[in-house]
Amino acid sequence: MIIMNKAATTEEISGVVNDLKNHGLAADVSTGEIRTVIGIIGDESLISATHLETLPGVKEVRLIETPYKLINREYSTLFDGKTESRAVKVGGVTIGNCEPVFMAGPCAIESKGQLMRIAEEVKGAGADILRGGVFKPRTSVHSFQGLGSSEEGAEQALKWLREAGDKFDMPVITEVRGESHVEIVAKYADILQIGSRNMYNQDLLTKVARAGKPVLLKRHFGASIEEFLSFAEYIAASGNKDIILCERGVLPVGRGKSYTRYVLDLQAVPVLQKETYLPTVVDPSHAAGRRDLIVPMSIAAIGAGASGLEIEVHYNAKEARCDGQQMITAGELRFIIECCKKVNKTVRDFREEKT
Amino acid sequence: MIIMNKAATTEEISGVVNDLKNHGLAADVSTGEIRTVIGIIGDESLISATHLETLPGVKEVRLIETPYKLINREYSTLFDGKTESRAVKVGGVTIGNCEPVFMAGPCAIESKGQLMRIAEEVKGAGADILRGGVFKPRTSVHSFQGLGSSEEGAEQALKWLREAGDKFDMPVITEVRGESHVEIVAKYADILQIGSRNMYNQDLLTKVARAGKPVLLKRHFGASIEEFLSFAEYIAASGNKDIILCERGVLPVGRGKSYTRYVLDLQAVPVLQKETYLPTVVDPSHAAGRRDLIVPMSIAAIGAGASGLEIEVHYNAKEARCDGQQMITAGELRFIIECCKKVNKTVRDFREEKT
Amino acid sequence: MIIMNKAATTEEISGVVNDLKNHGLAADVSTGEIRTVIGIIGDESLISATHLETLPGVKEVRLIETPYKLINREYSTLFDGKTESRAVKVGGVTIGNCEPVFMAGPCAIESKGQLMRIAEEVKGAGADILRGGVFKPRTSVHSFQGLGSSEEGAEQALKWLREAGDKFDMPVITEVRGESHVEIVAKYADILQIGSRNMYNQDLLTKVARAGKPVLLKRHFGASIEEFLSFAEYIAASGNKDIILCERGVLPVGRGKSYTRYVLDLQAVPVLQKETYLPTVVDPSHAAGRRDLIVPMSIAAIGAGASGLEIEVHYNAKEARCDGQQMITAGELRFIIECCKKVNKTVRDFREEKT
Amino acid sequence: MIIMNKAATTEEISGVVNDLKNHGLAADVSTGEIRTVIGIIGDESLISATHLETLPGVKEVRLIETPYKLINREYSTLFDGKTESRAVKVGGVTIGNCEPVFMAGPCAIESKGQLMRIAEEVKGAGADILRGGVFKPRTSVHSFQGLGSSEEGAEQALKWLREAGDKFDMPVITEVRGESHVEIVAKYADILQIGSRNMYNQDLLTKVARAGKPVLLKRHFGASIEEFLSFAEYIAASGNKDIILCERGVLPVGRGKSYTRYVLDLQAVPVLQKETYLPTVVDPSHAAGRRDLIVPMSIAAIGAGASGLEIEVHYNAKEARCDGQQMITAGELRFIIECCKKVNKTVRDFREEKT
Repeated sequence: MIIMNKAATTEEISGVVNDLKNHGLAADVSTGEIRTVIGIIGDESLISATHLETLPGVKEVRLIETPYKLINREYSTLFDGKTESRAVKVGGVTIGNCEPVFMAGPCAIESKGQLMRIAEEVKGAGADILRGGVFKPRTSVHSFQGLGSSEEGAEQALKWLREAGDKFDMPVITEVRGESHVEIVAKYADILQIGSRNMYNQDLLTKVARAGKPVLLKRHFGASIEEFLSFAEYIAASGNKDIILCERGVLPVGRGKSYTRYVLDLQAVPVLQKETYLPTVVDPSHAAGRRDLIVPMSIAAIGAGASGLEIEVHYNAKEARCDGQQMITAGELRFIIECCKKVNKTVRDFREEKT
Repeated sequence: MIIMNKAATTEEISGVVNDLKNHGLAADVSTGEIRTVIGIIGDESLISATHLETLPGVKEVRLIETPYKLINREYSTLFDGKTESRAVKVGGVTIGNCEPVFMAGPCAIESKGQLMRIAEEVKGAGADILRGGVFKPRTSVHSFQGLGSSEEGAEQALKWLREAGDKFDMPVITEVRGESHVEIVAKYADILQIGSRNMYNQDLLTKVARAGKPVLLKRHFGASIEEFLSFAEYIAASGNKDIILCERGVLPVGRGKSYTRYVLDLQAVPVLQKETYLPTVVDPSHAAGRRDLIVPMSIAAIGAGASGLEIEVHYNAKEARCDGQQMITAGELRFIIECCKKVNKTVRDFREEKT
Repeated sequence: MIIMNKAATTEEISGVVNDLKNHGLAADVSTGEIRTVIGIIGDESLISATHLETLPGVKEVRLIETPYKLINREYSTLFDGKTESRAVKVGGVTIGNCEPVFMAGPCAIESKGQLMRIAEEVKGAGADILRGGVFKPRTSVHSFQGLGSSEEGAEQALKWLREAGDKFDMPVITEVRGESHVEIVAKYADILQIGSRNMYNQDLLTKVARAGKPVLLKRHFGASIEEFLSFAEYIAASGNKDIILCERGVLPVGRGKSYTRYVLDLQAVPVLQKETYLPTVVDPSHAAGRRDLIVPMSIAAIGAGASGLEIEVHYNAKEARCDGQQMITAGELRFIIECCKKVNKTVRDFREEKT
Repeated sequence: MIIMNKAATTEEISGVVNDLKNHGLAADVSTGEIRTVIGIIGDESLISATHLETLPGVKEVRLIETPYKLINREYSTLFDGKTESRAVKVGGVTIGNCEPVFMAGPCAIESKGQLMRIAEEVKGAGADILRGGVFKPRTSVHSFQGLGSSEEGAEQALKWLREAGDKFDMPVITEVRGESHVEIVAKYADILQIGSRNMYNQDLLTKVARAGKPVLLKRHFGASIEEFLSFAEYIAASGNKDIILCERGVLPVGRGKSYTRYVLDLQAVPVLQKETYLPTVVDPSHAAGRRDLIVPMSIAAIGAGASGLEIEVHYNAKEARCDGQQMITAGELRFIIECCKKVNKTVRDFREEKT
């Protein structure tokens, strides 16, 4: 990180950026309330700190080895001097504020009627953002792959999603499964979701980042937190820092029945909050894979400090073409949203009272 | 499980028990508010349900394959007809009630002064039960193994623990690491703890069970929930059902830094509550291995429905001879206890209001 | 699977295929030495076995639930009646024969000189196929991403690879990291490799499959064998059965040093041979992440029955821009190839003698 | 480690040992072909290297942080100057030589007839050491726990084992499951086995070590190699270095079917050979949990350099009261032993030819 003088001029900043380019490196220029800081994108061993410190306007150079520099909390502290997370704004919704945000909707969009009905119900239950899958990443090629499996189906489903979002006044989020989906999804959706299985897919991350819309990145179920952040860095390095991190469960251990699909790693919430300024949300539905755990784990996630939840909802779980066993009803969603808001307020009030 | 008629006589019950013995099986006789149910201990394939159903006083026989029968929620429902968990009572403290219970104290007892000071502090902070390690299970034989590494040291430390518990009116809990410790620990402690690494140690489980005091069993970090319950069953099969289950983290996944020692599996809390009538508590200290996560994860655990927490406390973490990096102060403990009680009340009140 | 009569006509076969299409399903028509068998691609619950059995030419219908039908050993046995694996042929090399095949070369192509020198050396050491990475999937966006990070660099490196393969008479293999690389890689390479991190990337699998060249699919380090086969099925379902499976290590367990990057799961070799007719090779380089294990693990892999090995070679490991610590020299490669051939012959001769 | 002068006297050595005692530390005195080296047992931070270097007869002091010092290869190299492993001798059998050793027998001893028959068969097949379980560590308390579940049964079974070993001229190995079994097992068996689940049981390790017989320690399925060695160190620190390490599989990863009970980590073999002078053997039976993998994985283990194999054999797998699905016949065992010896010779000859 190249820390510029508070009084550094635009020319001095460009000078540093060009110098980096000449060394085969790219630059991330961040101007905050305190100063400008320039993050180096690429292999820092190609350049020397001593050299950089001789450039006009440079106050100090810190070469750091971490694979996530641009999303590092330390980085934003330098130019902004703020300790809070950097919230992501979508429509009228802010993710990363002190108020938790609720994303809900069907696992897969199955028909216009199904989507509209669920959208209305989740809105009524207090949801802020509407989710609905078009391109489903399934383990078996012989399972339902979402309406996105045909080109017309994809666009049709995306249009319904847009329409539902507009009608019920909710920004919409949906998954981009492959590189060829980026353009069409970015045309209709407000947040582009990258699923757990694609977390390591750097080409997809880069392409999605460049679409210029907020990105929700799910942690791979076999990834350490360091890897999770290293791949989020691919998005930031493509010029997009509107990133929402999502914990959705890691691989279970042990032989015998685990009773859940994954282990929900809620420690990831406070750890990520310390390491990065990006907001973290939790998806209890995929971690559990069973609906009876969604209520307690939603409350636990908010207790751990999550900035929001993403939950799958269906009015008739048995009829759902995908993941029916983890769907809850809009009534249960309302219970979760109200209870989580109360818990969040209880904790926040208590913290304020004590400090 | 052999379900007896409501009017079954003592003779009829003994008859069934003797019949089981003749087949090389043992019996767990549970008489509850509804009726007597007899759990079969051993390999059920050695006996036929048809034969058992001909015995006087027998209403119905259900041969089930699960490795945990005696601690199965279904089992207690049959004779007690209750849906709540079966609370474990120790001194004036009840674990498994609607109020969470807090166990706190030093990782290792280092001296009388250290223990007395911490005991006074955690009592002041609101703790219900005092913990303190005498026999420490360390990865390296070259690390401090606790005062229990000599025989006199062990008894001395246990006496201090008893004295501290009596002085500050808290039941005391400490770990039994090997079979040879059972007798001496049972002489002084109120709850016998079996550490994570000993979860699979069936000879220890059996011996501890027979000491006749409540047992806190920690889940092994490589064990599935089914295995956890299967080994808790070893305790119940030795005639002791005063078992407190404790989730303390499972192995992390992925390459690169995980930032925590283990992954705290809070889904285990509601899963265990469904599978068994035993109460479940959470140890956030060992899962995190770092003190800054103890507050959020304690709140999360209570949010998930845990019946209590076990937390390591020291007035001077740097001086601690064991696990200093995860020790919190009594001040932080007070924050946790008060906040968790508020969160628990918020959730409980909300649930009651809605149902 | 729809098993046709031995005498089934082309019309009858087309009739079944069309009937499947009318039910929203696709067909995989396999005509072997015994008969034609039609694999159903898609959700079999959309059609009834009873209905299919009424169609002309159909002998028997077996609806099976496994997520890998088309690559199932049982499937090929039905139409071919053979018990051996189905070998994949590339140039003059056959993978899946009784003779192991050796793929070797640099982790990343760095320059023409480097590639040509290594190509000559590995050919001299006995290698059959030349490997060389153009698009490198790195954990950190700040690390060297291969010459493929620019469009011209990519084509240049691929041309060198082709040239080296032609000059030293070896088919060439290289990784396709993103969907946008498929076309250009398929233009120059003989085998398209899908890296471990992309195993779950079904859109990439489908696109690569359609390029019509053999595909080497690496198992994800967090994937069970069932998942591995389920994603290989995506390739087969796109009409390409020239698939080479590659075991390259799964996530290590436990706390503390593991001493290797991954755990090489050699049991996967005989398990995969039982489940599928596809050949399995082993990559000891990435599993170990250290060169001193390559010799013993190569011998072990051949002992377990692997059809070949993929090994990274460099004449100057310290200079390598990627994964230097796991590079071996061509001299060591020669040792491995000769020793593995001897071990393979020893085992094969012994088996023949005993049966 | 305290490296003594070559000419150090017995008094000088005792002087150092007493000095360590005065600092609360124990000593491991190793006199080899080159010199005496004294390993420090306990927390090295309690003493200063500078102080130790002033003691008479001391040449050099190296304080090292590794949790396994006494079994470290570096340690034995210092006093013995040898690069080979330190073999463990039992009866006429040497484990850790260039010739692999084969331990075979039933999972559980069921009757005298069963044991005698299997003993005769495995001897005929070429086995060197007879195994047979008396105390079985089962997941379910309701499963058969071995004849050791009653005191008379235990001694009876152990006597049969001794008798079978004597009759067929094979040393015998059996598992010590709990601390109370040590004495009786040490009375009858030649090698005391510690099962995977007890690897972390330091009290058992210490007690078994003191019985003065060779110990076979199995790696826990959730343990890293560093942990495995750290717990082997507990045995060495109790004065017993006749330790045989045994790899028997680690936890599988991923969702869906794994097809094997554990993942056999054969990389552990060369890694352990590098880290310690102790011999390493492999148990393919428990790793696989299915008999059809025993042949290929045995060959692979020997290919990886293992010093021996432990394999479960039964003449009638269906009748076996424990782990029947992984039993092979004596005929299959003979195939394995002969083939493994040929492979071992092939590799050894090739190595010699090349060096």
